[in-house]
Amino acid sequence: MYQPPKGTRDFLPEDMAKRRFIFEKLRSVFEKYGYGEIDTPAFENIELFEKKGSVGGQAVKDIYRFKDKSGRELALRFDMTVPVARVVMSNKLPKPIRFYYISKNWRYEEIKKGRYREFYQAGIELIGPSGSEADAEIIQVTVDLMIALGFENFKIRINSRAILDGFAKKLKIKNADEVFRVLDKLDKKGEAAVRKEMAGLISKKQTDGLFELISGKTNEMDSILNALDKKYRKYVKVDLSIARGLDYYTGFIFETIMKGFESIGSVCSGGRYDSLIEKFGGEKTPATGFGFGIERIVDIMSEKKMFPDSGKKSFFVVPVNDAMKKKAADICNELRAVGIAAETDLLGRSLNKNLDYINSKKISYAIIIGQKELDAGKIKLKDMKTGEERDIDMNAIKDVLGFL
Amino acid sequence: MYQPPKGTRDFLPEDMAKRRFIFEKLRSVFEKYGYGEIDTPAFENIELFEKKGSVGGQAVKDIYRFKDKSGRELALRFDMTVPVARVVMSNKLPKPIRFYYISKNWRYEEIKKGRYREFYQAGIELIGPSGSEADAEIIQVTVDLMIALGFENFKIRINSRAILDGFAKKLKIKNADEVFRVLDKLDKKGEAAVRKEMAGLISKKQTDGLFELISGKTNEMDSILNALDKKYRKYVKVDLSIARGLDYYTGFIFETIMKGFESIGSVCSGGRYDSLIEKFGGEKTPATGFGFGIERIVDIMSEKKMFPDSGKKSFFVVPVNDAMKKKAADICNELRAVGIAAETDLLGRSLNKNLDYINSKKISYAIIIGQKELDAGKIKLKDMKTGEERDIDMNAIKDVLGFL
Repeated sequence: MYQPPKGTRDFLPEDMAKRRFIFEKLRSVFEKYGYGEIDTPAFENIELFEKKGSVGGQAVKDIYRFKDKSGRELALRFDMTVPVARVVMSNKLPKPIRFYYISKNWRYEEIKKGRYREFYQAGIELIGPSGSEADAEIIQVTVDLMIALGFENFKIRINSRAILDGFAKKLKIKNADEVFRVLDKLDKKGEAAVRKEMAGLISKKQTDGLFELISGKTNEMDSILNALDKKYRKYVKVDLSIARGLDYYTGFIFETIMKGFESIGSVCSGGRYDSLIEKFGGEKTPATGFGFGIERIVDIMSEKKMFPDSGKKSFFVVPVNDAMKKKAADICNELRAVGIAAETDLLGRSLNKNLDYINSKKISYAIIIGQKELDAGKIKLKDMKTGEERDIDMNAIKDVLGFL
Repeated sequence: MYQPPKGTRDFLPEDMAKRRFIFEKLRSVFEKYGYGEIDTPAFENIELFEKKGSVGGQAVKDIYRFKDKSGRELALRFDMTVPVARVVMSNKLPKPIRFYYISKNWRYEEIKKGRYREFYQAGIELIGPSGSEADAEIIQVTVDLMIALGFENFKIRINSRAILDGFAKKLKIKNADEVFRVLDKLDKKGEAAVRKEMAGLISKKQTDGLFELISGKTNEMDSILNALDKKYRKYVKVDLSIARGLDYYTGFIFETIMKGFESIGSVCSGGRYDSLIEKFGGEKTPATGFGFGIERIVDIMSEKKMFPDSGKKSFFVVPVNDAMKKKAADICNELRAVGIAAETDLLGRSLNKNLDYINSKKISYAIIIGQKELDAGKIKLKDMKTGEERDIDMNAIKDVLGFL
């Protein structure tokens, strides 16, 4: 009862500070590309997620569902793409529509490392354009995000759902998953080695057909690569083995893999979903986008110690006795008035107890007001990092702040 | 199915921009007082809210509840005070604890103007200190918030749950609600008029007792007022008629009423809840705090047109034909690299159609790249607000930005 429900977590200030750092980086990149923030209800009418072509597969089974008091069947949202498609259907909005979100989603999944039943996720949806430039924009935003967060060693693997489906169908390949996994080694092992491995899986005719199709059908990939600036292209690799697990994808799909953290899986994934809005009964509306896994990025950035110090100075004013309380409160107000965080003692503690608290909360400076100092019109300023102390004029606190 | 569930809303970018403006103001005030951000799961184990002394009354009936797939009984959180009390119980944290939150809560209530089943709420909890200085800090933060948002005409009405309960019990008053409503007119109508009205409700002896108690028992209020700086005190009024609807309050309670918007009710309310953590089986832990009604503030600020223009400049680059597309994409990348929002045409539209879109999305500037301009090494910059156009050197875009 006093622990959060299974698979969920409390986020204390140090956890939220990490997420806030990421949120602000995401927000600034998204807004540079003209994306506007959107939010939808935590729950939707269940039919939305159960509609054919919407979520599908294991994912729809993982949805938290419940009835409200009037018997409405509701479901906690599983991702934001489906709710955004609903918003697009039910509002007249000028196209292209560029939406971003930073919000929580819920999935009743098996709990394992880095996977939770409640998690923060961000993402963008670009609705209207069908061309490769739109998919290229999605990739560009991903690259800019990763760089803004401080990453350099990552790869964006792109593929097309249409290619995968087409290959398997045309060549009557039934063990497509295995075949594509072998094919994925092409750039590492070369054609001869791959053909040899294929021989155990499919006929020579099918293999020949496959190589012919690869060269022809990567046009969609080529036009995306061509629409990308050189600066971005170097992070991208065509990878015919990837196939995202959601039913709504129709074309371009991608994943983002961090070097050294391959086992964590993709940190940013998405693709094109041109039929979703139509399946909901709306007009045919091309759309592309991604979801960004904030929890996975937090884990990686924590492990790599990538979160910077906020650099913000904070103060705690210690009144040495009750008579100094009013002065301490005044100094706090003076500091807050110029936007600086300040606290004073509300527990009537000793100087030492207060210093313990100041250390535990990583407050940058202590200001100590004692009778001796006060009589001399001074206060004591203690730098908690260096331990250095100095007496300063109690009417010149703002001047001193300039030097900190 | 394509509308959000009853009582909930979609927040489009213009709605989110308003909330974001408020969130940032709240955040900066909270952090100045040393509060750290916290978040808890959207749902809790139901027993937490059903515990005696926790939520109680109508409120507990309004909770959205459901079972997960393994039969766990869960409930969407109704407010953040109860989850925060749980966090305090289950983590060893140095006191005083100062937490703030900006998050969504859910209540299955009757829907009326300004009241929704899903809503953003902010708040703070100050856990540890029992003294009046802590309650005074809560009031100070409220005042600073209201001022940061641009309000001046508001009143913070303070009272104590202990006073109310004590009065009614001691004087054996059964119609306490009516009596306190009459008493509330004291500062407007004076003692004689109030006594006259009381005569219809309670005995002369009870009335005498009441006036005697008022003068004696407002000590708690006096010490809070005394702990407040003059700058803050002027917004505060002792009001013996207020009585918040949640079971966990034990002492000081308050409401914030906006002049001209009295019918909307309180926009920021809270108080002291010294027994909540103890009732959960923890140590006796004094605590005080408030909840801030973001949706009500959004309604008021919208009506009073208090949301400022963001002041951020944005650009849309129009390639006049396909041959200009690459140059348009390059200019966008150049602008984004210096943190400016830029888009280009992804729909192959005419110049006029693009200008329609630019207007509808309130983009500040259009950059038009035509063959004629390009041949002369120029691009056209159009200020969408004034309609003013000028040709600028296409290699000097960054220089031009300095003048905008």
